[in-house]
Formats: sequence, C-alpha cells, structure tokens
Amino acid sequence: MFKQFSIQAPSAVIETELQHKIDNKTKPLGALGDLESIAFQLGKIQQTLIPNVSKPKMIVFAADHGVVAQGISLFPQEVTPQMVMNFLMGGAAVSVFCAQHNVPLRVVDVGVNAQLNEHPLLGIRKVAFSSKDFSQQAAMTSHELEKAIQAGVDEANLAIDDGVNLLMFGEMGIGNTCVSSCMMTALIGVSAIDCAGRGTGLDSAGVSHKAQVIEQSLTRAEQVTGQKRSAWSAQTLAEQVGGFEILAMAGAMLQSAERQTAFVVDGFICSVALLFAQKVAPSVRDYAIFAHQSNEKAHKLLLDHLQAEPILSLDLRLGEGSGAILAYPLIQSACLFLKNMASFESAGVSGSEQ
Amino acid sequence: MFKQFSIQAPSAVIETELQHKIDNKTKPLGALGDLESIAFQLGKIQQTLIPNVSKPKMIVFAADHGVVAQGISLFPQEVTPQMVMNFLMGGAAVSVFCAQHNVPLRVVDVGVNAQLNEHPLLGIRKVAFSSKDFSQQAAMTSHELEKAIQAGVDEANLAIDDGVNLLMFGEMGIGNTCVSSCMMTALIGVSAIDCAGRGTGLDSAGVSHKAQVIEQSLTRAEQVTGQKRSAWSAQTLAEQVGGFEILAMAGAMLQSAERQTAFVVDGFICSVALLFAQKVAPSVRDYAIFAHQSNEKAHKLLLDHLQAEPILSLDLRLGEGSGAILAYPLIQSACLFLKNMASFESAGVSGSEQ
Repeated sequence: MFKQFSIQAPSAVIETELQHKIDNKTKPLGALGDLESIAFQLGKIQQTLIPNVSKPKMIVFAADHGVVAQGISLFPQEVTPQMVMNFLMGGAAVSVFCAQHNVPLRVVDVGVNAQLNEHPLLGIRKVAFSSKDFSQQAAMTSHELEKAIQAGVDEANLAIDDGVNLLMFGEMGIGNTCVSSCMMTALIGVSAIDCAGRGTGLDSAGVSHKAQVIEQSLTRAEQVTGQKRSAWSAQTLAEQVGGFEILAMAGAMLQSAERQTAFVVDGFICSVALLFAQKVAPSVRDYAIFAHQSNEKAHKLLLDHLQAEPILSLDLRLGEGSGAILAYPLIQSACLFLKNMASFESAGVSGSEQ
Repeated sequence: MFKQFSIQAPSAVIETELQHKIDNKTKPLGALGDLESIAFQLGKIQQTLIPNVSKPKMIVFAADHGVVAQGISLFPQEVTPQMVMNFLMGGAAVSVFCAQHNVPLRVVDVGVNAQLNEHPLLGIRKVAFSSKDFSQQAAMTSHELEKAIQAGVDEANLAIDDGVNLLMFGEMGIGNTCVSSCMMTALIGVSAIDCAGRGTGLDSAGVSHKAQVIEQSLTRAEQVTGQKRSAWSAQTLAEQVGGFEILAMAGAMLQSAERQTAFVVDGFICSVALLFAQKVAPSVRDYAIFAHQSNEKAHKLLLDHLQAEPILSLDLRLGEGSGAILAYPLIQSACLFLKNMASFESAGVSGSEQ
C-alpha cells in the first residue's frame, strides 16, 4: 500500500487582507486579471501578503510503457532514453526554457527501458524497466506502485528540504498520452474516444486505434478485478492501467501539498496525474497552479472537469514540463506585483470616482 | 502633413529554411504551437535563422484628452500625471514587470495636462496640454497631429539607433479607451456600442453613455468635414477624433516597421494605434507581435478584424504596456528554442515513424 497523505486546505484567515492588498494597488479593480488570482492563491498557500516563488525547481519524471507494443505512438520506445539524454545535455525545450529562467532542472528515471548512465542532473529511482502492456495484464504490481509514488514523495521532500518554494513537474515517456487517456477514462467516466488525443501527432485512424486499445484494456481490467472501472480504488486503477512517471508526479504533487508548497501542473499528462492525486486526497487541488491549455483535445475536457483556468493557451503539445516553465515568469509576475507595486495611498494617485 | 512611411514587407526568401529549422528541433511537428509562429515571424523580420530580442525597450506614451469633460471615465484627469510619476518611481505594474525582466522603461509625455518635472526616464515631447474635446470640435490641428506622429518616429529612431531589436509600446491617458473606441468605430465601420468598453471599470450605463458620446462626436465631425467617416483620410480621422499618445504609438510602430524592427502590441488602445497605422501603411502589420487579448470586449472584435492571434489571454485590462512586458519572456523563449534546442540529428533522437 502506498503512502497515506495528510493534506490541510490552506487557511482562509488571510483572504480579506490579501484581497485588500491586491485591490489597493495602483490599477483599476481586477485589472491584472488572472495574475490577481494567482497572487491570491499563492498568498493563501504561503500564508503571507508577500508570497514568493524565488526558488523554483523543475523535476521531469521519465518512464516507459508496455502498451506501446500495441502501436499507439508515432515514436519508437528508444526515444524515451534518447530524450532523457537530450534533457541532460540541455538540448530539449524544457532544458532551454529552464536555462532561460535560471530554474534548476532534474530528471528522474522511474522506469525507462534502458540502463542510464549517471549524470549530475539525473536521479535514478527506477521502479522497473517499463510497465507491463496493460492491454494484456496489469501495468504494475502493488509493490511497483508503492515505489513509483514514493519516488515522487522523495523528490518533493528533497526539493522542499532544500528551500524550494515552487515545484514544477514534467514527464517523458513514449506512449504516456495513451496511458493518461486510459487513466482519465476510468477516473472521470467518459468514453475512451473523448479522452484519446493525437499525442505526438497521430492521425484520426491512429487516435481511434488508441481509443480501442484503451477500451479493450479497461474491459480486461474490469474482468480481472471483478469491478466496474467506476468502482475501482486509486490503488486498483493505478495497478491496472497506470504509468510510473504519472504516478511519481502524483506522489510528488501530494507530498508538495502535504508540505503546503505550491506546484505547477503542465499539460495533459500532468493534469491526469493531478486527477489521480485528487482521487487520493481532494485537497491537493488547492496547491495546484495550472500552466496551460494544450492542443490535446482531452486536455480541455479535463481542465473543465477540474474547474481549472490555466495561465497560457499556446497550442503546445510537447509535455516535458515545457508549458510549466513557460508559465513560470507569469507566476513570478503575480508575486512581484503584490510585493512591489505602489498602492493608491503610497503613490498619491487619486482613486476611482465610484 | 505628417511623415510619409516607406515600409517593405519582410522578404519571403528565408521561409523554407526557417521552417525546416523549426521542424527539425527535438519535438513533435508543431508541438511548440504559437512559439513556432513567433520564431518564424521574427526570423523573417530579422532575416536570420537566429532571431533575437536581447535588447528590448518599453516606451510608454502619455497624454490627456479633452473628451473627459463628457464624463466618460471613472478616474479624474489628474490621474494621468500621477500615474506618470508612478511609472517613473517604479510603482506601476509596467515598472514592476520591466524591472523583473530587466527591460528599460521610458515614459514620453506627448500631451499630459500638467507640467512634468524632468526625470532621467522621462522624455518630454509635449504636443499640447491635452487634446480638445472632440465631441465639440476637432481633437487637434494638423500641426499637432504631425508633432504627435513625429514624437513616435523620433522615439523609435532613438531606440533603434541604440541597437534595440524589440520595441514594446504602452500608453497612459485618462479617457483613452473612449478615444480608441471612437477611432475604431470610424476605422472599421461598426457601431459605437460594439467598440465601447468598460475602460477602467464603467458599468453598463457608463458604457452606453460613452457610446453616445462617440456617436455624437463622429456625427459632428461628419458635418464639419462634409464626409462620411468611412471616406475620411487617416489625417482627417486623426485630427477629428485622435489622441496624442495613440498617434505617437502609431508613429513609433510605422517607424519601427520602416526600419524592419519588430514591435509588440499591448492591449486595446495599442491595437487601435496599429489599426490606424495600417490605414497609413498596411505592411506595418507584418512587424507586429500581439501580446494579449484583454478583457475589453471591443478588443476581441478588433483582434479578429486584424486576424491577430495574441500570445496571452489573462483577462488583463490595465494598459500601460503591462500585457506587452508580460508577453516578453515568451517572445524570448521563441527565439531561444530556435537558437538552442538540439535537432533530431544533433541529439541522436529517432524521428517519428510517419
């Protein structure tokens, strides 16, 4: 059985004072739009009128997926370790954007189907060499699930112990759009075709094949467990159709929330990790800042389900945490306006006549 | 008569090479969404495969408007010089965000209704102490129009001569949402009510009063000029219902384009400046990067008209160039992915199987 989490919702005591401070900055009421919501949320999470995200960290979890045997991705599985190397060498999008914003990047292998060499930016917490093909059998054992969640917990602790005040998560794993769609189908009870997307670029035949694989996998798992998918516990769902990097992200989110630390949710796969984390402990949602609405159609559906209003909408569909790091300067701006903008009083600016 | 502009559309010769470079970065095709379009546009403007925006500058033009006598703004006119002081002292949103991104900020007085003290960040190019109330008479003389446009031209030249490779424009002027709505109504031929918005926070009665003032002003101007608004030249339109800071921004955009330098369009008022600039020289559009879709309803209509796809949509309604500076790190990201991401070949990553 994986770690039990004890997550407190942030105290509402500070809300009035926070809103007053936001409203007295030299701008029309509400004129900084979504930045005001982010400032409010961060102030509440950090229980301060001067929240800050000065020490962020990006953690990218990587793993492989047995279900790629069903031909659900355009790219071959060898791309997972190749991209991990690319992250480490600084050539991937997430590496370039982390360097731009001076945000440390760490890559954590929780199940890549290759032996990776040591590297200063690489954490090795390998659960297994890939999950099993869940169209044929359970994706993982209960022990593997526990290890995947714990990998995320340990990474979050490592960062927060080091003073990190904003965690960003990303993922790499060929086939993980399919795994995420499958988890989402089971978690929110819609049809597989509504949850299946283009991933790295499938055409419509590819997408409908993917949806078939998902439906067939869930039916298999219902037979094995003797339960409808809607009755599954988080544990059963994860063992049957989970993915290591997705569960590690969920573990890291839950631990981050337990330690009252805000985290940034990247794109579709990361949002599914949050959806799973919410099934484990609903209050995790209070600590989540949504980076972007991706081009993956199921992501829109999922964000609506989560009642999330993401910061960006750039038609990204890359994953890796790339959307999270692109949103970072805007999260920083939310903190900075609250800290550094003058108030009407301090600047001697006349207020509105209404 | 104001300056005539000679603007060349960017050469298309580099397009194939640029697209090839974008497509060979280690990511699925098109996966960086809007950032790819920005990289493409900047590469074309700068005619290079490594466009860069390493030397940006924010110029905020400020002026007052006689039409505030008609009660079309929630804030009193004295707020214009007060906010100029706030920009200079570092307390305004645009100041805070410029400091965050280390972008130099300059404020240019082109018509504030107060004598401003000298300050290292302030340029004084005052055309007049406020425009005239255009509901009663022409907003400005032909000589004043020439000076307003020239102020923008001179500011753009000053920056570009100094090596600036990305110009960002902002504005401050109590009442300038009304002036912009009026210019837009005349420029695109829709009704005043479709172009009038809440500004700094008008209620619906305030908005319909504003639309009435606009319609009445345009009817007055049609009678004086003996021409329907749709027949007006740019010159006539600007003299009758323009605003100094809006025209200075238009002048700066046109000069920026003439010198093949990209510029960032902030919110509604800045977009109207571009709309006016397009009437003067349509190719100016090729050099414009749209920062954001604001909360001002007429802005959506205008962006559709301009076929613009702005980078952000944060429900901002502040002006000042605040949306432009918030978009800046994303424009920088577009340049950096193109420069620094590995290609499939250089990183040894396998390509798609299709």
